Amino acid sequence: MRQTIQPRSGTAFTIKKGELLKVIDPEGEQVADLYAFNEHDKEEFISSGRSLDYNESIQFKKSSKLYSNRSNVMFEIVEDTVEDHDFLLTPCSVDTFKHFYPDEAPVPGCHGNLVAAFSEFDIPEHHVCTTFNTFMNVEVDSAGKIAVLPPKSKAGDYTVFEAKMDMIVGLTACSAGESNNFRYKPIQFEILPANTL
Amino acid sequence: MRQTIQPRSGTAFTIKKGELLKVIDPEGEQVADLYAFNEHDKEEFISSGRSLDYNESIQFKKSSKLYSNRSNVMFEIVEDTVEDHDFLLTPCSVDTFKHFYPDEAPVPGCHGNLVAAFSEFDIPEHHVCTTFNTFMNVEVDSAGKIAVLPPKSKAGDYTVFEAKMDMIVGLTACSAGESNNFRYKPIQFEILPANTL
Repeated sequence: MRQTIQPRSGTAFTIKKGELLKVIDPEGEQVADLYAFNEHDKEEFISSGRSLDYNESIQFKKSSKLYSNRSNVMFEIVEDTVEDHDFLLTPCSVDTFKHFYPDEAPVPGCHGNLVAAFSEFDIPEHHVCTTFNTFMNVEVDSAGKIAVLPPKSKAGDYTVFEAKMDMIVGLTACSAGESNNFRYKPIQFEILPANTL
Repeated sequence: MRQTIQPRSGTAFTIKKGELLKVIDPEGEQVADLYAFNEHDKEEFISSGRSLDYNESIQFKKSSKLYSNRSNVMFEIVEDTVEDHDFLLTPCSVDTFKHFYPDEAPVPGCHGNLVAAFSEFDIPEHHVCTTFNTFMNVEVDSAGKIAVLPPKSKAGDYTVFEAKMDMIVGLTACSAGESNNFRYKPIQFEILPANTL
């Protein structure tokens, strides 16, 4: 069953080993921040640093694996119509808005939305670190400068993540203007049984 | 007083707001992994993702700031004779050695050495995430591929970090072959009073 995450909001849910998480951008140019914990040991969580290290690339696409802080594979990307995501930057938050948009009223952002969603699973705020930012278009130039550009995802584009362990997963429709070409859109997702691709 | 961290080891210590941490590479081409907690709230720790985001660059040099997961500045780089460091990759660990060097006997690595050093301060293992890898030379090419190259630091090169809060700091002489041009050397450090530059 396809579920919808309303603009600038987030949710959390469980997924079992072998199941597939399909994250869909229904309108295009919308980022979805993804974070995950081992369902049976919440001290194990997704790790940008481990994933960048073992992936030996900042580009993630089909066959890329997302690792935990304990170096176990949490997800493998098994289908991907976009192949342009970010795993460098933290989710937007009240502090992000204060830093980058000091004249705007701050909103909870993906960090706040994830913290609220994970609180249902008794996960504390400080365990929500750098997210896998599905469809986020971040470029690093030859001088190391980071630029956040409009996502390359078009309406209906999707990425499918195969769960490699039982997990509690958080997912958002991102709240930051620059990341989403300054229009806030929904995200959709489905959890598919194992071996249904 | 200058202190020495023996090859392939690590230590932890406190530093007060305003004091300066000078990290010295006495022989050249040696990486020192740095991690830090707010001394008064160990749920606040250094964050690669926040720092990359606010720095808007993967290059860190004089005037760059290192942020916490709560978006507070922990360190500012106030002197730097190298200006080539890494804040993408996790510290080497038993798992890193198994992944990259499966034929070698694994060693604790910077992660294990930091975990052991921080245990003196009752900090749990899973709070040690992506380190600021002083003097580590990581290149990202235009396709996003990551390459670990020999450090650019020469004998006597150093970086000075000004503490922006009271902290518990961990520091290592890195254990990974590729990161240190395949020779394991010591690291030295000094804690200098405020306003002594």
